[in-house]
Amino acid sequence: MTDSTSVVTAAILVIGDEILSGRTKDKNIGYIAEYLTGLGIELREVRVVPDDEDEIVAAIDALRAKVTYLFTTGGIGPTHDDITADCVAKAVGVGISHDERAVAMLRERFPNPDDLNEARLRMARIPHGADLIDNPISRAPGFMVANVIVMAGVPSIMQAMLDAVAPRLKTGRKMQSVSIDTDGLPEGAYATPLGAVQKAHPDVMIGSYPNFDGQRFRNQIVLRAREAELLEPARAAVEAMLASLRS
Amino acid sequence: MTDSTSVVTAAILVIGDEILSGRTKDKNIGYIAEYLTGLGIELREVRVVPDDEDEIVAAIDALRAKVTYLFTTGGIGPTHDDITADCVAKAVGVGISHDERAVAMLRERFPNPDDLNEARLRMARIPHGADLIDNPISRAPGFMVANVIVMAGVPSIMQAMLDAVAPRLKTGRKMQSVSIDTDGLPEGAYATPLGAVQKAHPDVMIGSYPNFDGQRFRNQIVLRAREAELLEPARAAVEAMLASLRS
Repeated sequence: MTDSTSVVTAAILVIGDEILSGRTKDKNIGYIAEYLTGLGIELREVRVVPDDEDEIVAAIDALRAKVTYLFTTGGIGPTHDDITADCVAKAVGVGISHDERAVAMLRERFPNPDDLNEARLRMARIPHGADLIDNPISRAPGFMVANVIVMAGVPSIMQAMLDAVAPRLKTGRKMQSVSIDTDGLPEGAYATPLGAVQKAHPDVMIGSYPNFDGQRFRNQIVLRAREAELLEPARAAVEAMLASLRS
Repeated sequence: MTDSTSVVTAAILVIGDEILSGRTKDKNIGYIAEYLTGLGIELREVRVVPDDEDEIVAAIDALRAKVTYLFTTGGIGPTHDDITADCVAKAVGVGISHDERAVAMLRERFPNPDDLNEARLRMARIPHGADLIDNPISRAPGFMVANVIVMAGVPSIMQAMLDAVAPRLKTGRKMQSVSIDTDGLPEGAYATPLGAVQKAHPDVMIGSYPNFDGQRFRNQIVLRAREAELLEPARAAVEAMLASLRS
């Protein structure tokens, strides 16, 4: 469902003490950010919070009110510190219980009834009214309820869930962008004229991104706009400005 | 300054459209998280927001009220999209102007007055009352004002600034932790007894972290406590529980 006029927005909520302690390095934020940009969904904010019910519910409340879709990662396993599904049900204001569709998925993975113990069945606790999101790797599903999309924290599973849910999402007009290498010119040399180009092209977002390779800076000027035709005159203005500084 | 009784907390605010678009992958959150844990400072929350004054000021207000220290990264360069210093001054409620100490640092890098243009001098705009944080790489300093620590977004510069500011920070008692490899035992097999161990050791934080290598899960159970003597009995209980499952 692509709507070429509206802006579709998103936020990410990463749930997990292990990210905040630095023990686990998050690999999901950058992946989801790039994926959503490719879909034409604008990521507006990211938060990382601990495995604490009050913190999680408060963050869900704040973020889902601001955006079209809130994506969460982490906290949907079978152990006592996995409390995401309950927090989402509470924040969205629906009940939660074992979902027959989710139980059936777990039965495929654990055909022996002894293996499908109480802890594993916790992974089939799904907020009422949710749509399930397939997990081809370890079966325990993610889900989407209201505008909240709940995914695993393990990157390979999260990525598979994102592929599974993407076709169901509303998407907006894709942001068009062009990147210009300043070819060694430092930010301080072009900052003032670049600010003037930005003023003259208010519908194009112009950013300057320094990169230090340990020896010297290599900067990129990135121009973004929802209409490709806005981009070209701004790009020409930046190129002309850089050329005049080099001459 | 180590205070062995108090808990010192922190939050991180990452500022930058380029992180939200996925164009740049953040490398600072995980680094700072691990660094703070090593210092005995507990990271409580992370947010990523766009280069937008209202969003930045609101996030500074919310986060700095919750924690001992708020660390920001990004948005302190010379271009028009670098607005962090002004936002911090506004949030903290102090004025901002060119700081003579910061101007002197920039003069060392740009001895020719023609090179120290208006845009580069923007990097010497510092909120009133701030302490500067040295930048050995490109000289433009970070700063600390009230409980907000403002650092560059370029990872190598941010890391140098963190080293520079760390000795000035209050630190708490270091979190002690121990990690137990479950040696192939899946989460679903130990989730219920692990929950019982957590109940019996409420002062120890017990987490279970699945890791999927593309073939199978390798899980770690991590126990954390501020008192090493609390950790040992909980560790023994987890080991005994895992041994009983394997037998």
